[in-house]
Amino acid sequence: MQQFQTEITLQSQNRGTYNITQRINELVNKSGIKTGICHVFIQHTSASLIITENADPTVRDDIEYWMQKHVTDGDPNYQHCYEGDDDMSGHLRCILTDTSQTIPVTNGQLNLGTWQGLFLYEHRKGKFDRNLVVTVQGV
Amino acid sequence: MQQFQTEITLQSQNRGTYNITQRINELVNKSGIKTGICHVFIQHTSASLIITENADPTVRDDIEYWMQKHVTDGDPNYQHCYEGDDDMSGHLRCILTDTSQTIPVTNGQLNLGTWQGLFLYEHRKGKFDRNLVVTVQGV
Amino acid sequence: MQQFQTEITLQSQNRGTYNITQRINELVNKSGIKTGICHVFIQHTSASLIITENADPTVRDDIEYWMQKHVTDGDPNYQHCYEGDDDMSGHLRCILTDTSQTIPVTNGQLNLGTWQGLFLYEHRKGKFDRNLVVTVQGV
Repeated sequence: MQQFQTEITLQSQNRGTYNITQRINELVNKSGIKTGICHVFIQHTSASLIITENADPTVRDDIEYWMQKHVTDGDPNYQHCYEGDDDMSGHLRCILTDTSQTIPVTNGQLNLGTWQGLFLYEHRKGKFDRNLVVTVQGV
Repeated sequence: MQQFQTEITLQSQNRGTYNITQRINELVNKSGIKTGICHVFIQHTSASLIITENADPTVRDDIEYWMQKHVTDGDPNYQHCYEGDDDMSGHLRCILTDTSQTIPVTNGQLNLGTWQGLFLYEHRKGKFDRNLVVTVQGV
Repeated sequence: MQQFQTEITLQSQNRGTYNITQRINELVNKSGIKTGICHVFIQHTSASLIITENADPTVRDDIEYWMQKHVTDGDPNYQHCYEGDDDMSGHLRCILTDTSQTIPVTNGQLNLGTWQGLFLYEHRKGKFDRNLVVTVQGV
């Protein structure tokens, strides 16, 4: 078995989702690994990784709607609010979603279903540099 | 280190949970790998994978109760509702649960705790073919 | 590629979060693996693993606040309540958080972001022995 690991930095523009499927697929291709797994890890606590429908963008709008409804920004009961209304809600959204995703690699690419895409989910309002560590293991 | 990867298709019968522990354990056994990890990935955005109690089935009924209460079917604010009331709620349930689970392999089988089982969680009302990619890596 | 797997038991003192970053880093160091991934799995259905901010402890207090607000202890609609008010809510919290975390290993240690820590999240009220299976794979 072989292994490939690299780090990349992406810039978010604002709260919302960013399709990173192609970018990660390019790294899988670069790894030369044909069969195995690809682990994608985001080194932050207010941005996360989700796998969801890649076709209709309103799916991601509705995810954001649910998050805003159920994970209140600026809840007066939060103790942690140094960086504003989206500080603690950002941490909570990361707990409910995922800090990493592991995806099978088959035939030299991410073996996602037809309707699946991998998205960086920025939970803060504003632009941020977000570091990802990508590890591919296999043959 | 060695690796084994395969794909299987399961048919759900309706919204609810399906114990797939034994089926995945059979694949671990088939892999011949004694120590390592088993990665199970579902290639869909309205069915997910959960690990929860395998003994009392009312645990899974109560999970379904919580989901129905907190992830409204057919919320009039959803924009994405092409396929019915359970369309967008299905995508949301997948975000809150998991698209993949990684389980340690020890002594040639899934090293789950006494009370843990692995379940496919179908979020749509109706029967669906659900594809899984299973990758076992280890020695 | 090489692999290391071990099991450890930690004792929780009560509902709340326990920083296990250093303990897991010691196992990564013991493995001798410099680059790869570290998979940490908890063999229970009412305690989970989360990655969140390691600096301000009120972040974890606010996570607990959100959980208590949205995952009701002792909801009279729960069917599963053998072990008390925190029984079913504990299972639900595990579904919303994670049973395992996979973290990249770089330069012989967990490659977490500056503000990230790995925490065992005990959801039951009381002391429990919690078993973890840790697998490190890489070179």
